[in-house]
Amino acid sequence: MIDTLYQDIHISEDLQQVHSVILNQLDDSTPFIRDALSDLVKNTGKMLRPALLLISAQFGSVEKEKVFRLAAAVELLHMATLVHDDIIDQAPTRRGIPTLHSRFDPRTAVLLGDFLFTRSFQLASQYTDIETGRYIAGIVNSICESEIRQHNNFTFYTTNFKEYHRRIMGKTAALFALSAYVGAHESTVDERCTHRLKKIGYNLGAGFQIIDDILDFSDRSDGTGKGTGTDIRQGIVNLPLLYALQRDSGSLEKKLSRRPKNGRRLKQIISTTKELHGIERARTVAHSYTDKALHSIHLLPPGNAQDSLKQFTSYLLQRKY
Amino acid sequence: MIDTLYQDIHISEDLQQVHSVILNQLDDSTPFIRDALSDLVKNTGKMLRPALLLISAQFGSVEKEKVFRLAAAVELLHMATLVHDDIIDQAPTRRGIPTLHSRFDPRTAVLLGDFLFTRSFQLASQYTDIETGRYIAGIVNSICESEIRQHNNFTFYTTNFKEYHRRIMGKTAALFALSAYVGAHESTVDERCTHRLKKIGYNLGAGFQIIDDILDFSDRSDGTGKGTGTDIRQGIVNLPLLYALQRDSGSLEKKLSRRPKNGRRLKQIISTTKELHGIERARTVAHSYTDKALHSIHLLPPGNAQDSLKQFTSYLLQRKY
Repeated sequence: MIDTLYQDIHISEDLQQVHSVILNQLDDSTPFIRDALSDLVKNTGKMLRPALLLISAQFGSVEKEKVFRLAAAVELLHMATLVHDDIIDQAPTRRGIPTLHSRFDPRTAVLLGDFLFTRSFQLASQYTDIETGRYIAGIVNSICESEIRQHNNFTFYTTNFKEYHRRIMGKTAALFALSAYVGAHESTVDERCTHRLKKIGYNLGAGFQIIDDILDFSDRSDGTGKGTGTDIRQGIVNLPLLYALQRDSGSLEKKLSRRPKNGRRLKQIISTTKELHGIERARTVAHSYTDKALHSIHLLPPGNAQDSLKQFTSYLLQRKY
Repeated sequence: MIDTLYQDIHISEDLQQVHSVILNQLDDSTPFIRDALSDLVKNTGKMLRPALLLISAQFGSVEKEKVFRLAAAVELLHMATLVHDDIIDQAPTRRGIPTLHSRFDPRTAVLLGDFLFTRSFQLASQYTDIETGRYIAGIVNSICESEIRQHNNFTFYTTNFKEYHRRIMGKTAALFALSAYVGAHESTVDERCTHRLKKIGYNLGAGFQIIDDILDFSDRSDGTGKGTGTDIRQGIVNLPLLYALQRDSGSLEKKLSRRPKNGRRLKQIISTTKELHGIERARTVAHSYTDKALHSIHLLPPGNAQDSLKQFTSYLLQRKY
C-alpha cells in the first residue's frame, strides 16, 4: 500500500536514492558494524520521515543530492532511536528480524545506536547550515527528554491527558516536524510556508502516534514484528487506555496494576478497553490531528507538492500496520 | 594536585564558569533528569578536556563566554561517553558514587547518556560554525566506532599493537584532540598553530590513555571509583598486557583465557605482567607520546599559554590516579 502511494506521488525513485545514501554510510565503517547493521539498513520500514522530507522539499527548489542526504540523516536518526528503544522495550524482534540487543548484547546495541546517532549528525552537518544543525540537535535532545519521561513517569499512576500529549508531541511528532522543516528550509521555501509545513509535521506525527497506539490493540503479527499489547505489557498507558480508564469503574485499573500482563489478562484489558470505547475515542482524536494537518495543507500553494502531501496524510490515517 | 596546577596556570576560575554552564544545562530539564544527573554533574572529575580547550584558546583571543560554553559541551560529551561506558563495563560506581545504570536501570542510563550527547551537540551548535559542528560529529562518530571495536574485537585473541594504537587514537586521543582543536579554532589561532594543537591533543590523549592502562595495575580504590584490574576482568588487553604477552612463554596467556579473572588469578596476572616488564615498557611508550607532544609545544608561540600547556602535559604524565 505504501509502495503504491510512493509510486503515485512519484517519490519511489528518490526514496531509493535515499536508501543508497544510507547503505553507503556503512561502506566506510568497520566490518563488524557493517555486518551488525546490515539487516537494519536493508530492511528499512515505510521510510515515512524521509518521504515527508522529500515532499516538503517539493514546495521549493533544491539540489536533489543534498535533499537525499538530509532525508537519509533523518532516517538514520530514526534508526538510532529504534535501536535504543528496542533495548528499553527489551523487544526480541523488529520488522521480523532479531533486534541488535538480542543478537549481540545490550552494550553493543547501545554503541551501535550511538554510532547511528552521530553518523546522522555527521551527515546532516555536511549538507546543512549551523541554524538547522542547532535545530536538529535541539529536537533530538527533546526527544530524549520525552523518552525518559515515558520510561520513568508514564505508568497509569501518573498519567493524564496533558502528559500524554506532551509525550507524543515531544517524541514522534517532533521527528515528523523536523523532517518537514528540514525539507522546506533547505529548498528555500519562504518562512511562512516553512513554518506551516513544520506545524503540519507536528500534527501528522501526533495523528500517526495515536493510530500506532490503536494498532497496539490489534493483531500485528503480520510484518511489524511488534506483537499485540506491547505498550500494555510495558505499563505504558496509551490513548485508548487513558480514555477507557476515564469510564472505568475500577476493574480495568485493577487488571492493569497486576503483573504479568499477558495471556488471559492481556486479552481482558484489550476487550475492556474496546467496550469502554477507548479505541473509538482515540480514533476521533487521531482524526482531529489529521484534520488540523489537512486544514493547513489547504493553505499551502496548490500544485503537485500539495496533492502529494494530501495523499500522504490520508495514507497515514488509514494504515493498518 | 590537579587543583594546584589549575591555580598555578590561572584557569581555576574559568573552569568554575565552565562548571556553572554544565549545571545550567540541567536547570531547564525535567525534575527527573535534574535529579538523576545531579550527582554526575556536581562531581565532575579532573575536567582535563575543558582545561585543554581553555589552554588552547589562550593561544588566540576569544570571547570568554563562548569558550566556556564550548568547554562545557566537550565535558558533556565526555560525560555521555562515561554513562554509556558504565553500562558497557557494568561498573557499579563511578567517582565513588553509584552509576546511573545501577541506580536506575540500564534503559534509563541509555537515555540519560543520549540526553547528554544531544545536549552537548545542542550547546556546541549554538556557539560554533558548521565546519566545527561537522568536525565534532565526525570525531564522536569515530569514538563510537572505536568503542564498538574495543567491545567486540578487542580480546587477547585478536589484539596486536597496531589495533591497540588504532583504538586509543580513535577514542581517548580523539577527544583530547577535539578539545585542543575547538579551543584553538574558536579563538582564531592561525591554521598552522591550530593543526599543531590538535596534534598535541592526540599525543597527550594517547599518553594519558597508556598511563590509565598502567594505573589499572595499581590500587586505585582511592578516589577514581575504579578498582584494580578492571580492564583485565573485562578481557581487554591493554598495553602492559600486550608487552607482557610478547615475552610470555604461555603461562600468562593461559591465565588470561580462564574465567573469572578475579582474586588470586587477577593477582597472578598482575604480578606476571610486572615481572615480564609490561608496565615498564608501556611507561616508555607513554613517555614517547608525551615527548612528541612536548616537542610540538616548543614549536608553539612562547608565552603564558605555552607555559601552561607544558605544565598540563607534565601533570598528565605524573598523575597517580
